[in-house]
Amino acid sequence: MALQGVLRPGHIALRVLEIGPALKHYIDLLGLHETGRDAQGRVYLKAWDEHDHHSVVLREAEEPGMDYVGFRVDSEATLDRLANAVKESGCAKDFIWMEAGEHLHTGRRFRFTVPTGHSIELFATKDNVGCATGDVNPDPWPDGLRGMSPSRFDHCLLYGDELDDTVKLFRDVLGFSLAEQVVTQEGMQIAAFLTCSNKAHDIAFIRHAEKNKFHHVSFQLDSWGDVLKAADLISKHDVALDIGPTRHGITRGATIYFFDPSGNRNEVFAGGYIHYPDKPTITWHDKDLGRAIFYHDRKLNEAFLSVLT
Amino acid sequence: MALQGVLRPGHIALRVLEIGPALKHYIDLLGLHETGRDAQGRVYLKAWDEHDHHSVVLREAEEPGMDYVGFRVDSEATLDRLANAVKESGCAKDFIWMEAGEHLHTGRRFRFTVPTGHSIELFATKDNVGCATGDVNPDPWPDGLRGMSPSRFDHCLLYGDELDDTVKLFRDVLGFSLAEQVVTQEGMQIAAFLTCSNKAHDIAFIRHAEKNKFHHVSFQLDSWGDVLKAADLISKHDVALDIGPTRHGITRGATIYFFDPSGNRNEVFAGGYIHYPDKPTITWHDKDLGRAIFYHDRKLNEAFLSVLT
Amino acid sequence: MALQGVLRPGHIALRVLEIGPALKHYIDLLGLHETGRDAQGRVYLKAWDEHDHHSVVLREAEEPGMDYVGFRVDSEATLDRLANAVKESGCAKDFIWMEAGEHLHTGRRFRFTVPTGHSIELFATKDNVGCATGDVNPDPWPDGLRGMSPSRFDHCLLYGDELDDTVKLFRDVLGFSLAEQVVTQEGMQIAAFLTCSNKAHDIAFIRHAEKNKFHHVSFQLDSWGDVLKAADLISKHDVALDIGPTRHGITRGATIYFFDPSGNRNEVFAGGYIHYPDKPTITWHDKDLGRAIFYHDRKLNEAFLSVLT
Amino acid sequence: MALQGVLRPGHIALRVLEIGPALKHYIDLLGLHETGRDAQGRVYLKAWDEHDHHSVVLREAEEPGMDYVGFRVDSEATLDRLANAVKESGCAKDFIWMEAGEHLHTGRRFRFTVPTGHSIELFATKDNVGCATGDVNPDPWPDGLRGMSPSRFDHCLLYGDELDDTVKLFRDVLGFSLAEQVVTQEGMQIAAFLTCSNKAHDIAFIRHAEKNKFHHVSFQLDSWGDVLKAADLISKHDVALDIGPTRHGITRGATIYFFDPSGNRNEVFAGGYIHYPDKPTITWHDKDLGRAIFYHDRKLNEAFLSVLT
Repeated sequence: MALQGVLRPGHIALRVLEIGPALKHYIDLLGLHETGRDAQGRVYLKAWDEHDHHSVVLREAEEPGMDYVGFRVDSEATLDRLANAVKESGCAKDFIWMEAGEHLHTGRRFRFTVPTGHSIELFATKDNVGCATGDVNPDPWPDGLRGMSPSRFDHCLLYGDELDDTVKLFRDVLGFSLAEQVVTQEGMQIAAFLTCSNKAHDIAFIRHAEKNKFHHVSFQLDSWGDVLKAADLISKHDVALDIGPTRHGITRGATIYFFDPSGNRNEVFAGGYIHYPDKPTITWHDKDLGRAIFYHDRKLNEAFLSVLT
Repeated sequence: MALQGVLRPGHIALRVLEIGPALKHYIDLLGLHETGRDAQGRVYLKAWDEHDHHSVVLREAEEPGMDYVGFRVDSEATLDRLANAVKESGCAKDFIWMEAGEHLHTGRRFRFTVPTGHSIELFATKDNVGCATGDVNPDPWPDGLRGMSPSRFDHCLLYGDELDDTVKLFRDVLGFSLAEQVVTQEGMQIAAFLTCSNKAHDIAFIRHAEKNKFHHVSFQLDSWGDVLKAADLISKHDVALDIGPTRHGITRGATIYFFDPSGNRNEVFAGGYIHYPDKPTITWHDKDLGRAIFYHDRKLNEAFLSVLT
Repeated sequence: MALQGVLRPGHIALRVLEIGPALKHYIDLLGLHETGRDAQGRVYLKAWDEHDHHSVVLREAEEPGMDYVGFRVDSEATLDRLANAVKESGCAKDFIWMEAGEHLHTGRRFRFTVPTGHSIELFATKDNVGCATGDVNPDPWPDGLRGMSPSRFDHCLLYGDELDDTVKLFRDVLGFSLAEQVVTQEGMQIAAFLTCSNKAHDIAFIRHAEKNKFHHVSFQLDSWGDVLKAADLISKHDVALDIGPTRHGITRGATIYFFDPSGNRNEVFAGGYIHYPDKPTITWHDKDLGRAIFYHDRKLNEAFLSVLT
Repeated sequence: MALQGVLRPGHIALRVLEIGPALKHYIDLLGLHETGRDAQGRVYLKAWDEHDHHSVVLREAEEPGMDYVGFRVDSEATLDRLANAVKESGCAKDFIWMEAGEHLHTGRRFRFTVPTGHSIELFATKDNVGCATGDVNPDPWPDGLRGMSPSRFDHCLLYGDELDDTVKLFRDVLGFSLAEQVVTQEGMQIAAFLTCSNKAHDIAFIRHAEKNKFHHVSFQLDSWGDVLKAADLISKHDVALDIGPTRHGITRGATIYFFDPSGNRNEVFAGGYIHYPDKPTITWHDKDLGRAIFYHDRKLNEAFLSVLT
């Protein structure tokens, strides 16, 4: 098999202040579909083109932010192998096996904390509930799309302090490639965009004084036209806009950032190049950070470095 | 490494009747860049976003068509391993090692013939000559783009008779996934779309009475808007159109087909879903073949099954 | 007032074989809104960005086709003036005043037959029922759009025999400009695209042996992306496609043609240039007719000249 | 003739600090074509789809800004009629007849100052030098497009104090429609978007303490994809960006604002609705001014009200 080991970002668990407005946001505006609720009151959601039972899990909490992000690996055997490798890496701690069924329709998950302070999970099993177009004579898109209707949960961007060992863990232990990085003149890496696929990124980290901060969760759109539609919907629904429509220098993606009712930042984006493991890492100098992040504005907006959950 | 083994379609070698008009077509209209010519008179071309020295090789011949298509693998060790596996598979013959340097800037290549009659190559080494935007603080696209300016050679579609063993070789020996297939009511597979990546296809085969026929070589565009521009360029340059702009049911790609001056079919396309190895194979019934191939017309044009080189 | 006299195509009255399937087509697929039904059973429809009470009127009949197309003029005084001018032109006959109220929410209409055999109406008064976004702090598009959701009825294309006097009537009496034409080598005009606005056409005629034939009614979309969505909807709903997505040479519009359940041809399109009365008429030679009509295919499909209602 | 009187914005005369960098900007980046230089050193430019000899005139000066904007009227008789009407309106002063030839390839122009302090011209004659695609069997777009390559000079936005009489002049004397307006709670009009065509605006004014200020000159693009390309070009060429890509609530246009090397603001935009003289004026309340101007951000950026030339 040409794609092995860690396959993709499989789910992200977010804290929201109130589940009602959150569902209105993620279902009516963003266009995800609810696939279940568990005894704890967590709500499970998926995007229309995903087969797995869920990719977003919401729970009510006092503070917004991310509980954990989970990556699907190719098999239970790989899960055991990678769990051991993570344990032995010296780059993680707080190892926990979450038992099968703790997430609806999902097998056991191996959870650990990376040096930036974030909880990461690996899992191999989640029920295939089918994508909205089916797998026999499918239409290119399903009836009944709502809102921005992204096809997939794509990646998240996390802020934390110990970037070096976190990146080392993802690259050396989990097999990710470093697609892009931002480095200071002194050679310190201040941002790392990591991929386990042909996508430009599957997870990204930015060096930041505080541990375990969440910048955004991102969902994939088809086109720049869909980014405009998303922007219009943001205004029609009086949602808090962060920035966009614009383009990232990093990944080339066309993008817009906005906030859910709890203050968690969302992104929907389209485009980007095809990554291969032998593609050289793209390096941005920190003096070009503005252009790297927001290619058109060529400067960061105030929120980018300060508004985190 | 999450992406292993066969990485991507690395080059396609096409026969053209006259090199002059062919270069005018592939450089001025399509927008590829010439990267070299060898002592045999072969001309090497690449697309702007590719790092490898070349992805298209043209040579003059009496008849148009494809000489061979080559796949890049992740290492010389993998090359040896896969070469042995191909030899032992019972699904290939005519094994030849092409020595390093036989293609400009390229290491040794292992060539073999698959049951459909096509020559396939594997190689692990080709010089990185850089993509047009560079890898430091890159712009999203380079200056000086010409014509359709695809970012990459994407895949080819081949016609031949012994589909079953060819598909078996790609899946079981080379590690490809079967992303989509067309099957008859009796369950015979008449088309197979195979991927070694997150792309919807890296090579495809259609069952056909005659061996070793070439349907098209495909290049990747960014957007449906680029497909319109390509269509306009086809008319502005009085190039022979096959069909399009339209959408494929298979892969969801937005597409246009046209012919080079020698009669080799080209495609430029945009879009499609993200494939994963655990994504179920999409199956089309042959009664829906029209919709599968040309989603809007819902019937094949006369040329699709008959015009081959 | 800079825009005077005939303002726009205001309504088109079509015959359909069964009203039920027709409404499913024009409302669910095309995305028009029903605004009323009259005692004769006629159904009135409008597009979301139109203010006038209706722009499409459907009635059940034995044969499909167009009953008449009506143009809104700027005032009742202009209506009287133009009615007299038409009567005196020698280029029309069958003059009838349809009384106010014969169409719902519409004033008196002056109907006449032009030499190609088509019934044309002029009217000055129709109730403003408001566009879907309103006129105070409007969003760029309304909630609840369905199907292709064109913004407006745009134009129709009619086939008939006596082209010269019909064109003369529209130009000299009604004040239209000839935006584009197709002429034979002998100088005979075989197609005329006429505009009373900055649009590339408000009505068009093609020379044809038979009188009073209807080729298509056209609605305006925003973008080439909307044309793709329309094409996908056509296939998802198993609607009969004529041709497209493609581009017209004439008007530059990006377009798709399809049929309503009664066989009346519809078009949705986007784009085109800004016409001014001092812009030279664009002339196409009949040897370039293919490129003029379907710029990418550069030949007419069989249906274009033969399938009429 | 259905389009009468004032036809369109015909030229805008801008002051630039240095002609060299200005031409690099307007020709290489924006993509206008130079059509002539006169004895005073003024440089004449046009967009590719315009037939008139020029639409932009640049001259070197100590201060940037707009000298005047000129509107083409339908005939010399109309020019005389409107010149008299302007003189008698009580809403203008400083009447000057510029003699034929004072602008290259242009007839006599009637110049006057409106109450906001801006110089406006009317003219009826300018040589048709042809658009880049020609008028016989034209392609939809010409070869050799550079930069943003807008099709046309579209409109300008001007700031000044005496809005009421200026708007009165354009509406009552020159025959423009008020397509959109922004009004305060007290009913004071603070912005007026005026059209003499089916376009959403041909000139616009914003109420401002100082007379005769220039906000921006705008050029028309085909699509939202072209706005992205323009945004990318702005960054690739290190041009000063104001804001965008975004959408205006007013006119619905998709837009980007940037500055020429002298500090004059430029806009390129795409889209918008079709205006008719009987379309109700769209009214925005000043509390919604942010949404009216920048529909996505829903607030003005600092520059919008303060950076003028």
